[in-house]
Amino acid sequence: MLHERIIRGDIRAAARLMRLADDRDPRARQELSDLFEHTGKAHVIGITGNPGAGKSTLVDMVVQDLRSRNLTVGVIAIDPSSPFTGGAILGDRIRMQRHAEDEGVFIRSLATRGHLGGLTRSTNDVVTVMDGMGYDIVIIETVGVGQDEVEIVKTAHTSVVVLVPGMGDEIQIMKAGILEIADIFVVNKADRPGVERVMAELSTLQHIVHHEDEDRVPVLKTVAPSNVGIRELGDAMIAHLGKISASGEKAKRDQARLREIILSYVRESTQERFNQRFREFDERQDVSKRLLAREVSPYEVADLLLSEILAEGR
Amino acid sequence: MLHERIIRGDIRAAARLMRLADDRDPRARQELSDLFEHTGKAHVIGITGNPGAGKSTLVDMVVQDLRSRNLTVGVIAIDPSSPFTGGAILGDRIRMQRHAEDEGVFIRSLATRGHLGGLTRSTNDVVTVMDGMGYDIVIIETVGVGQDEVEIVKTAHTSVVVLVPGMGDEIQIMKAGILEIADIFVVNKADRPGVERVMAELSTLQHIVHHEDEDRVPVLKTVAPSNVGIRELGDAMIAHLGKISASGEKAKRDQARLREIILSYVRESTQERFNQRFREFDERQDVSKRLLAREVSPYEVADLLLSEILAEGR
Repeated sequence: MLHERIIRGDIRAAARLMRLADDRDPRARQELSDLFEHTGKAHVIGITGNPGAGKSTLVDMVVQDLRSRNLTVGVIAIDPSSPFTGGAILGDRIRMQRHAEDEGVFIRSLATRGHLGGLTRSTNDVVTVMDGMGYDIVIIETVGVGQDEVEIVKTAHTSVVVLVPGMGDEIQIMKAGILEIADIFVVNKADRPGVERVMAELSTLQHIVHHEDEDRVPVLKTVAPSNVGIRELGDAMIAHLGKISASGEKAKRDQARLREIILSYVRESTQERFNQRFREFDERQDVSKRLLAREVSPYEVADLLLSEILAEGR
Repeated sequence: MLHERIIRGDIRAAARLMRLADDRDPRARQELSDLFEHTGKAHVIGITGNPGAGKSTLVDMVVQDLRSRNLTVGVIAIDPSSPFTGGAILGDRIRMQRHAEDEGVFIRSLATRGHLGGLTRSTNDVVTVMDGMGYDIVIIETVGVGQDEVEIVKTAHTSVVVLVPGMGDEIQIMKAGILEIADIFVVNKADRPGVERVMAELSTLQHIVHHEDEDRVPVLKTVAPSNVGIRELGDAMIAHLGKISASGEKAKRDQARLREIILSYVRESTQERFNQRFREFDERQDVSKRLLAREVSPYEVADLLLSEILAEGR
């Protein structure tokens, strides 16, 4: 059984289960289910920000800092979906190779999947595996600050949003409700001009959104390649976990993440049934043609399909 | 009945149905279904690009060009989700007010909704209403080039991707497969330095992705406020519709959009059932607590919930 080997920290077994889960292999479900009772110990940290914000180097340095505290770290790097991304992003991954010899670090890249929400499920499965292996910290690094990224990081224990000076981030912060999910802001590349402007914008935004002083979140400056501010970021992450553990917020976020796992399974399963039913429906009743000819409306077809999918439960 | 008034071009009836649909009011479904047989005539155009690409002004000028050709135009402007967006984006909308007196133009803003895929459904409902009203062209303008935006514009007849010089767009193009969905590229603000670099990057990327010359898509330069390149963009949009009508691609995209409408309904309906069942489940069996205590796994709960949801069909 893979899960027994994974609990003992077997990297090959872990990689195999991650692959099975990502391929939606039916064997993955039972293994993940058996593994689940050994999870719940990892501190899950989401790190998000636009391309060009220097997240990879930042994560690299944070991993080094956490290792110096004797904490083990799993990293899930979410890569953009296109097959044409090649160079830049893979290059970033290569930088992480410095941890390749270190058993206390496990790095896994995930490509974005074509279907809505599919990546949330894949990410959560990998979190389950890394947590089950016993990693103290699991970092989820996403590119971009769109709705998908927010979905992925919003159930982390600690969400770090990375900005850089001079990139017109203000609108990006406001977009997709990123401000509401940030537990820590990092202004990276803080040796660049414009850093004070970003800090001021963040301060203004925080006053608008968080009316109580105690709700305002830390804003840290970093220069990742020079190791500036990294120790403070590690401190802030650990402090945040302490804070939410004490307030009961941690249990709430754990519940939200578990609920999200359930929902993503149910959603995918429904989508599969839908695809299959729609194909059958189309062959049997030529639905696509009749839709195009406006003989039947998509709203009617939706009702019919839904009742057919539900009737499967009989 | 709203749909009868909408077919006659009644703006107030249209606005009311759009609101009902966006609120997920059950009355909307039948009205949309009745309206559907009067649709299928509009040319649906998606326009997407990063914040700061000048899309609003570009759309404004394109609308003016299309009106000068005696075509009527509906515009669906997708706004970011946060309640804190205020100024900038609403300001852009205000610019469109120049068309406020023109009955041949109908502008509707949609906010992004919290749930995955919800916006795709709302957008498609508004397309149905505008199409039913008889607008020749329906433009969907989205902010950002993430997965959500790709979902929304990929079933348009014509997808326009807007870039600007000097914004590190290359990675944005590659991200989320935007290159694969673009039917027309626009390099806006083409009076700025760096325009030739963006053109060269696009050319290189096209060679990588589109192996056949005939698959390569037009790349146009515009300076929207000065009306440079706008006429050519209008020509390119219309020419693209002609091309896909002749090749049979138009029918394929229509089918894809109709299928997407059906899927989004089924997905939402399932999600509602899920939420309701999960609440009941939680009250009855204290699932959230048992999940946290690792007494039951989310994978097991998902299976149970799914079979309960399906059993509703009995």
